[in-house]
Order: sequence, then C-alpha cells, then structure tokens
Amino acid sequence: MILRMSSLFLRTLREDPADAEVPSHKLLVRAGYIRRTAPGVYTWLPLGLRVLRKVERIVREEMDAIGAQELVFPAILPREPYEATGRWTEYGPNLFRLKDRKGADMLLGPTHEEMFTLVVKDLYSSYKDLPLSIYQIQNKYRDEARPRAGVLRGREFVMKDSYSFDIDDAGLAASYEAHRGAYIKIFDRLGFDYVIVQAMSGAMGGSRSEEFLAIAENGEDTFVRSAGGYAANVEAVVVAQSAPVDASAVPAAEVVDTPDTPTIDTLVDALNAKHPRTDGREWTAADTLKNVLVMLVNPDGTREPLAIGVPGDRAIDEKRLGAQVEPAEVVAFDESDFEKNPALAKGYIGPGVLGSENASKIRYLLDPRVAEGSAWVTGADKSGYHVINLVHGRDFTADGTIQAAEVRDGDEAPDGSGPLESARGIEMGHIFQLGRKYADALDLKVLDQNGKLVTVTMGSYGVGVTRAVAAIAEGNHDELGLVWPREIAPADVHLVATGKDPELFAKAAEIAAELESRGLTVLYDDREKVSPGVKFKDAELIGVPTIAVVGKGLADGTIEVKDRRSNTRADIPVADVVDHLLTTIRS
Amino acid sequence: MILRMSSLFLRTLREDPADAEVPSHKLLVRAGYIRRTAPGVYTWLPLGLRVLRKVERIVREEMDAIGAQELVFPAILPREPYEATGRWTEYGPNLFRLKDRKGADMLLGPTHEEMFTLVVKDLYSSYKDLPLSIYQIQNKYRDEARPRAGVLRGREFVMKDSYSFDIDDAGLAASYEAHRGAYIKIFDRLGFDYVIVQAMSGAMGGSRSEEFLAIAENGEDTFVRSAGGYAANVEAVVVAQSAPVDASAVPAAEVVDTPDTPTIDTLVDALNAKHPRTDGREWTAADTLKNVLVMLVNPDGTREPLAIGVPGDRAIDEKRLGAQVEPAEVVAFDESDFEKNPALAKGYIGPGVLGSENASKIRYLLDPRVAEGSAWVTGADKSGYHVINLVHGRDFTADGTIQAAEVRDGDEAPDGSGPLESARGIEMGHIFQLGRKYADALDLKVLDQNGKLVTVTMGSYGVGVTRAVAAIAEGNHDELGLVWPREIAPADVHLVATGKDPELFAKAAEIAAELESRGLTVLYDDREKVSPGVKFKDAELIGVPTIAVVGKGLADGTIEVKDRRSNTRADIPVADVVDHLLTTIRS
Repeated sequence: MILRMSSLFLRTLREDPADAEVPSHKLLVRAGYIRRTAPGVYTWLPLGLRVLRKVERIVREEMDAIGAQELVFPAILPREPYEATGRWTEYGPNLFRLKDRKGADMLLGPTHEEMFTLVVKDLYSSYKDLPLSIYQIQNKYRDEARPRAGVLRGREFVMKDSYSFDIDDAGLAASYEAHRGAYIKIFDRLGFDYVIVQAMSGAMGGSRSEEFLAIAENGEDTFVRSAGGYAANVEAVVVAQSAPVDASAVPAAEVVDTPDTPTIDTLVDALNAKHPRTDGREWTAADTLKNVLVMLVNPDGTREPLAIGVPGDRAIDEKRLGAQVEPAEVVAFDESDFEKNPALAKGYIGPGVLGSENASKIRYLLDPRVAEGSAWVTGADKSGYHVINLVHGRDFTADGTIQAAEVRDGDEAPDGSGPLESARGIEMGHIFQLGRKYADALDLKVLDQNGKLVTVTMGSYGVGVTRAVAAIAEGNHDELGLVWPREIAPADVHLVATGKDPELFAKAAEIAAELESRGLTVLYDDREKVSPGVKFKDAELIGVPTIAVVGKGLADGTIEVKDRRSNTRADIPVADVVDHLLTTIRS
Repeated sequence: MILRMSSLFLRTLREDPADAEVPSHKLLVRAGYIRRTAPGVYTWLPLGLRVLRKVERIVREEMDAIGAQELVFPAILPREPYEATGRWTEYGPNLFRLKDRKGADMLLGPTHEEMFTLVVKDLYSSYKDLPLSIYQIQNKYRDEARPRAGVLRGREFVMKDSYSFDIDDAGLAASYEAHRGAYIKIFDRLGFDYVIVQAMSGAMGGSRSEEFLAIAENGEDTFVRSAGGYAANVEAVVVAQSAPVDASAVPAAEVVDTPDTPTIDTLVDALNAKHPRTDGREWTAADTLKNVLVMLVNPDGTREPLAIGVPGDRAIDEKRLGAQVEPAEVVAFDESDFEKNPALAKGYIGPGVLGSENASKIRYLLDPRVAEGSAWVTGADKSGYHVINLVHGRDFTADGTIQAAEVRDGDEAPDGSGPLESARGIEMGHIFQLGRKYADALDLKVLDQNGKLVTVTMGSYGVGVTRAVAAIAEGNHDELGLVWPREIAPADVHLVATGKDPELFAKAAEIAAELESRGLTVLYDDREKVSPGVKFKDAELIGVPTIAVVGKGLADGTIEVKDRRSNTRADIPVADVVDHLLTTIRS
C-alpha cells in the first residue's frame, strides 16, 4: 500500500496543542494521528487508525492463540444487569447514563462483566462446556472526572476485555495463567518496557490480581519494587501489622501543655523544649500519632466520616486511601463537619474521642505500624494539649486497621525481599480472578459431573488498546517527534522525494511501487512544492522507523536510508535500495 | 483457521425466538450468529462476528479502491455542531441524548455529517487539498420507535459512512459517480439481488440521491420500476401536475343533499341513486375529491394541521406523506382537533373551508392529479351535503400541491417509460449530493484558485453494514437454514465427523489440518457424543456453503461433499478431497 502525502488526510502542526501536557498527547496531535472532538473524546485520523488497528491485531492474535473466542457486545446496555450487581450505583458519576424514548434506563458500558456473565448463562449449562474464554475489542465509556493526556485517559476508548469461565478454582488459576502468558506476549510485541505488579482488585471484587504497567515517568500509577523481586502497585502494598511490644515499662499516660502546636513539626519542637524525653534521645515525628479526618461520599450520595491514625512522620496516600474505601470517594472533612461534632478539637484530636465507641462516634482505623503496646504522643482532645505515653491497647483502641499511609522509597518490601523503590507507570493491562461475584449476582450456574448446580468462577482480563497507542508514543519519541516500533508503525518506510527534477519523483514513485509490490506499506512524500526541510521535519515528527530520501544523492546513484531511532544514515546504491529496505525492515 | 464445534461458543436453537418475524432474524438467532441484548440492540457471537467482519472488509476494500481514506470518529459527540445544523432538534426522539457529569449535552451519533465537515474545516484550507473522500466504519445510534427484525433495523448498528468534499458541482458529480461505482462493486460482491432507485434526500437536504435496495419481500421500502428503466423509491416518485382542462362547459357548482354518506363508497352510491350524471356514465370514486386531515408534530413539539385533497379513488400513502413533511411526524387528526375547529363538518369537509385563506385556516395541499379546470364532487362543509361541479381554479383554490397519494401498479412512470410495478426492498446503501447545506451551516470554506473563499460542496454515502448481514441472510436461506454466499460465509468448509470409530475423527482432524494449512477456514464438527442427525441439522442451519462429511463412506475410501445451496452431493476419494474442496471453494 502506498500512502501519498500529497493526498493523505493529514496536516502536521508545528505548535503543541494548548491542552496537551505529556509528550504522547502533544506528538500524536501534532503528527496528525488523533484530533480532539470533545473533552476526553478523540477522532482517529488515517495515520492514527493504522496504528490503532495494528495494536488491535496483536492483541487479537495473542488472544486467539490461547483459544479465547472473539465476540462483540453493544456499547449501549440495559440497566437491569448492572443493577443486579450493584454497579449501576457503585460507578457513580463515572457511568454515562441515558434514557431511551420509552424512558428505559440505559448506560454506555464501562466494562462488560455483567453482559459476558449473562451470555454464558444464556448459552451454556454444563461443566462440559467449560473452560471458556471469550473476549471483545470494543468501545468503552467512562465519564472521567479529569480526562487527560489525550487518549491516555479518555472518556471513549477501545479496550480488549476478556473473561474466563471455569467450574472450579484450579480451572480459574489455569485460565488466569493462560491470559498472563498471552499478556506477556502482547506487551513484548508492543515493545513496552513494562512491569507486572500486584494490584488491588478494587470495585471489581475477586482475589488474585495483577497489573501490567508500562514504565513511564508521566504515568498515573505509582508502583514499588524491590531488588528481590517484589513488585506492586502502590495501592496494593500491604504493610504487615507490627508485632505487639511490651508496654509494662511505659509510664501512665500524661496530658501535657502544648500551646500553638497544630502541626507535627511544631509539636515535636514544643515537646523537646518543654517536655524532653528521659531516655536521652529527642522526640521525633515518628513518636507522634497523627489522626486525620476525611469524609467518605458513597455512590448514593450519603456521607460518612472516617478517622485514620498514622505515625506522624508518614502522610496519608490519597490513592491508597481511595483504593481502600472504593466505591466511596474521599473528600475533605470541612469546617461544617467540625461544627457538627463538638467532641473534635481541631489540631489536637486524639483517640480519646475517636472510634465508634467514643464521643465522636467516628470510625477510627489505624495504620498497621501502630503496634499493640506501642506508646504515642497524640492529641488530648483539648485545644493546646497533647497526651504522652498513650499506649495502644492499654489506653486506646481503634475499630480496625487501614492500608492508607504512604509507601516510601527505602521501606522494606512486605515479603522481606529488600528495600522498595518507587517508579511511575501506565496501566496497560489488568488481569484478575473475579471468582464468583458476578456469577452469584446473576445466577450463572452449570451442572457439575454429579448433576449438581454449581456457580461458575470467572476471571476478567483487560488491555487498554487506545491507551496502548499513547503509551507506546510516550515511551518511543525524542525531541523531534515519534519513533514507532516497527510492528506498530503506520508504514514500513517513509519515502521522501526532494528536489525539483521530475526524474527524482519518477524514481521515487518507481521505488514506492516496487516496495508496495513486495508487500510493504510506503508513506510516500510526493509533495512537489514543499521544501526538503519541511519534509524532513514531517518525517521525524511522524516517526516511521525507516526513512529513505530520493534527493541529491541520486545524481551519484545513491539513496539515503536513515534509521529514525538511531539517526544513522547510509547511502545505498539505487539498484540495491529495495532489497536493502526489505532486509532492514524484516530483520 | 479451525473452529471446533466442541469448544466453539455456539448453541443452535431448534425454536424460533418469540420476537422474530422475518426469516433472517429467526435464522441468525437460531444458528447462533446474534443474540438480543436489549430491544434493537444485539450481541455478535463468534460466527456472526466473522460474517460481519467479512462484510466490513469488502466495504473497506472498495472504498480504499476509490481513494477514500479511513478514519474513525467517536460515537459520543458534543451537542454544538448538531445544534448549528438544526439536527439536534430535527432528529426528535430518534436521537439518543445524554448529559455528562458536568451537565454538558452530548449525543450518540446517528450519522456524522457535522463531524466530517468540522474535521475538514480543521485540517484543510485550500482548493489544492480537494477533492477528498473520507470514511469510517463505525457504530451508529438511533432510538427507533419500532426496532424490528433483529439487526435489520436496530438501535445500535454498524454503518460505513463516507463524505466527499469538492470545490465545485462538477467535482461533486465526479465524487458521486466514484462512490456509485464502488457501491455497485460492493453490492455485487455481497451477492445481493439489488436495484438502484431514485431516492428522497429527506432530512439530509441536498439534490441527487439514489438508494441501493436489496430486493426482499420482507423489506421495509417499497419501490416502483418500469420496463423502460425508471426505478424509484415510492417516496421519491414525483407525479407530474396534470395539465389544465377547459371548464367552460361545466355547470355552476351545486350543493346536493347526500345524507349518511361519510365514505366515498356511500357517497358514490347516493349520487348515482339521487343525482345521476347527465352524460350517460355513472359517478365513480374518481369523480370525488377526498379531503384528508392530518396533524403534523414538529420536532420541537408544536402541532400544525394539514389538509390534503386527493381523488377519491386514491389513498394517501403514509410513507410518501411522511417523506414530504419531514422532519415533522404525522399523527391522526383527532376528535379534540375537530372540536377546536368548528368550521369542519366531519365526513363532509370541502375546499370551501380549507386553505389558509378560508374559515379553517388549515393549510390545504392538492394531489397534482387535480388539474386546473377539473370538476369534482366534494364535501359541502355541512353534515349530509356535498357539492357537485366544483371546479378547481373557478370555485376553489389550494395552498399548493403535495406528493402524498399512493402510487399504484399500472400507473404510468413519471418519465413515460411505461407502467410501474412495485416491489419491496431493504435499503442497503444511500448516496447523495448534500451540496453546501452542512458546509454553509458550519462555515467550511477554502480558498479557490483566485484566492477567494468559497464554500465546499459535499456528498454523503452510507452502507448499512450490520444490516447487510441480515439482508444477505434474508436473501440466502431455505427452510432448513442459512445458505451464505462464499465470500461472506463464517467458514469455507463445514467438516462433519460422524460415527463412533476414533479413526473417523482422526481422519477428519487430519483433513481439517490440511485444509487449514492451505489457507481455508474450517468449521469442524468434532463433537463426539452428538448424533449425525443433529450435526447435519446444525450444518444446514449454520449455512456454510460447502459441507464435507467424514462418515460411513470412509470405509470405502470416500468422503461426501455437499453443496448447501443446490443440495448436490458427491463421494470424493479421500486422497482427492482436499484438492477437490480447494477447487470448489476457489472457483
């Protein structure tokens, strides 16, 4: 196939779009791959569509290779199944809802667990029909609060979602492993530098869950890993409960006067100045117990306060907290909330009033680092006063623990495999064992070998297809433009004809035709009144990995072949150029 | 590729689905191609998706062949462009509308004229950029009042829509011809028995317009054609205005007593009994002028009455009327409407009170057969009375004419090419010259050769892709099941292994593998505990055009090869069967 620049529906832009922050967004728009239609909603222009289809093809091939079968569900769906699983409400404002002309509630599918469950229920009835893996590559809709970064987080996007159906846990484990293997092949072929991390299953329910993250400094996800092989999305890091310590030597709790110490730093300074420790060391933030109040907003709009106690040297991580309280959203605990609860002395709140058993009645969860028997400095529930030597288990209790404190570089990995270091990534794939949540909710049962009805166990596996295009761009560009991996590039060769001599264009056209006849796709810059400089800039921006220039060298019988990634060049004799390109591209 | 029936996600059904009326709907559901998800919303199961993708591929190849370039727009679109062209309102309840989390109005695209216009405006600016044809194959949404016949008229469906952009009318004509040629190739390849008919451009505006109709007795469209080559959708038939006749000999109009004659038949009988003609012939329905009242409901909800005068022997055709008054909808003129207009004597309404100049103020349009100077019997606007010898132009006038009367078999074609005969069809494609309607509304201008801004002229071209699958099924089935054309079939061969001997299955598996290695797709019925009868019934229902049976004949060294369409059978020696099948399939 030959794509002629003279007629290709393409305009490259010299300026970054005003709303673009990350390189992939800037470059995909500037190079004419995508075009914004509405916030978070994009049009795929011809070059972009070619790349998108190539990603789809790779995903499809690897899914087919593990025996998964493709079908396609509608995007517009009835409310009832999503009501049955609770997701009609749980999705909150992220769901695009609409009514049809008869007033029936419908939605635009954000994921299709319900529909896949129902179609299997509809068609299958026996253990003999299982295992089954089915998938679709289809448009999904999520009304993101902050669509960003072009197609990296859009509101309409293409996803491959597959689902496995098994009679028992061993079957699910096998289906999960098959998908895991397919995903490794997919992300290898897509050319990603990626990491497989433990993940939260979040609103989806279920047990084992891993994410495939493309490592990218602009990624929205933070993950941590250790040299010893631990890797997890930061939201999924589970800090172990600290072992109880002996509190028998700790003196009785004592309220001390700490005026004007609303922050941990001011508190530590005041303690060291007015109430120095007797064991020879200074008070530090790690000796304090910070009690943070937040408000949870449930999908149905109801509000519920939550107090979290963490060591004073450690912040709450909003994403980790968010993942723990899903599907509720976390908002600030504001002045009016304080006013409604006079037991709370702002800046001096302590466990004395927190917890569902105490004056505030606010649920109180502790960081697992707060060991039974450990002693703390914390608020005395009276403005200007703190209490020291307050011992967990002796002087206060909580309603439970929560994994909401930040994970820091240098923290020991939960599995003891060494210190953690953090990096950022883009979630490209997510595989997880749903178990029986959806099958239970929608009553998907089959007869087992003994003729007894048993609930099917499911796995759910997603790949962000449109997102993959952006993530590949994010990892494959330089200051001049995009640099596509070969298997994804919109063309095999970018052939540029430069100069005024018609012979140059004739020769270039001949080479293009020959390359096409040999099965390559050629992006041929045949524009006659465009300067060489503009053509080269366009070629660099568009990012086809191999560029061939039919120009000045032709007089000496050569054609320049450039490698876009390494920027190496070679003058190839005209007679050899087609073979040279074929070898280069197919190697 | 081998599709094994033992694991294929497929269940054939012996019973027709309760909601299915037409054969394609029944068979596509029973044979496991599609499955209903919501009214007018379907899931494509693996076999169906294979057929759908094949139709898409044919459409794509022929669009690419005329140089049209593929891109893809989102399905969820902002309101503003549709507001600018008036279609946000004009589409009325057919449009799926929704609000996003910020309250912005959005819609699910029913067609994408606006978006294509805007993307060209966005990227192009000069006559040098034109001509341009761009297209997409994408999901469309229309909230049909009566979704019916499975995917023949659904609410979510796949359409190929393309648009041409030209600097002048000659360019548009050329782009239109190119699309027309591509459509002929597409519908030939899809194996349709089709007709190209003149069409209304309807709500889309514009001038030249043709439809490609698949001839089908269950089709929703009626078309007429003459032996001399005239062919038109019945809605597009334009009856010429009858030439004026000399009324000088017609006596003065006379009100006559016609009690209890609310219908044309009772009126004709009463006239012949009580007021016989003096010229020797009897009164017939053709002598009467029937005045029909309807109510038009505009997309904004406003109502407007309309009176139509037609010869009494001819009915109003609802679809022809509907096409004339689009985007308004036609509803009945009911009792309460009569009550609001006391000038109307129900059953005896005449031109005396109709027309915007007369007592009722109701707009009054005449059938073009009502010639200037022609004399009629019609209502006298008084219950129980009619008027005879009422002459058009002498005794009454109207506000204009309307093409709303039925077209009947035997009517002369408008171009004089002979009598018309009618048949039914399914609209598979529609091509039309939009002209400058959308470019004007959205200000799409480019610089011409003289540096002057000129408005671009557009064409719009659609193919119903999901509908094509149903229409092909509608035209390709028998009482046993589907009979796919080869290029569309979900597989090349349906290979059935029957019997209990493991050797049969081993041989069948070997043949399947060999066919696969030769590039064929094999639907292989490898089910071990299923009876031959069930397997044959399934093969007939599924409709792969060539069926090969590895069964009893194997003992004699033969395999039975059946042609699904002709039901011819041949016993082919095992050693020859692969070559035989290849020859059969590729011929």
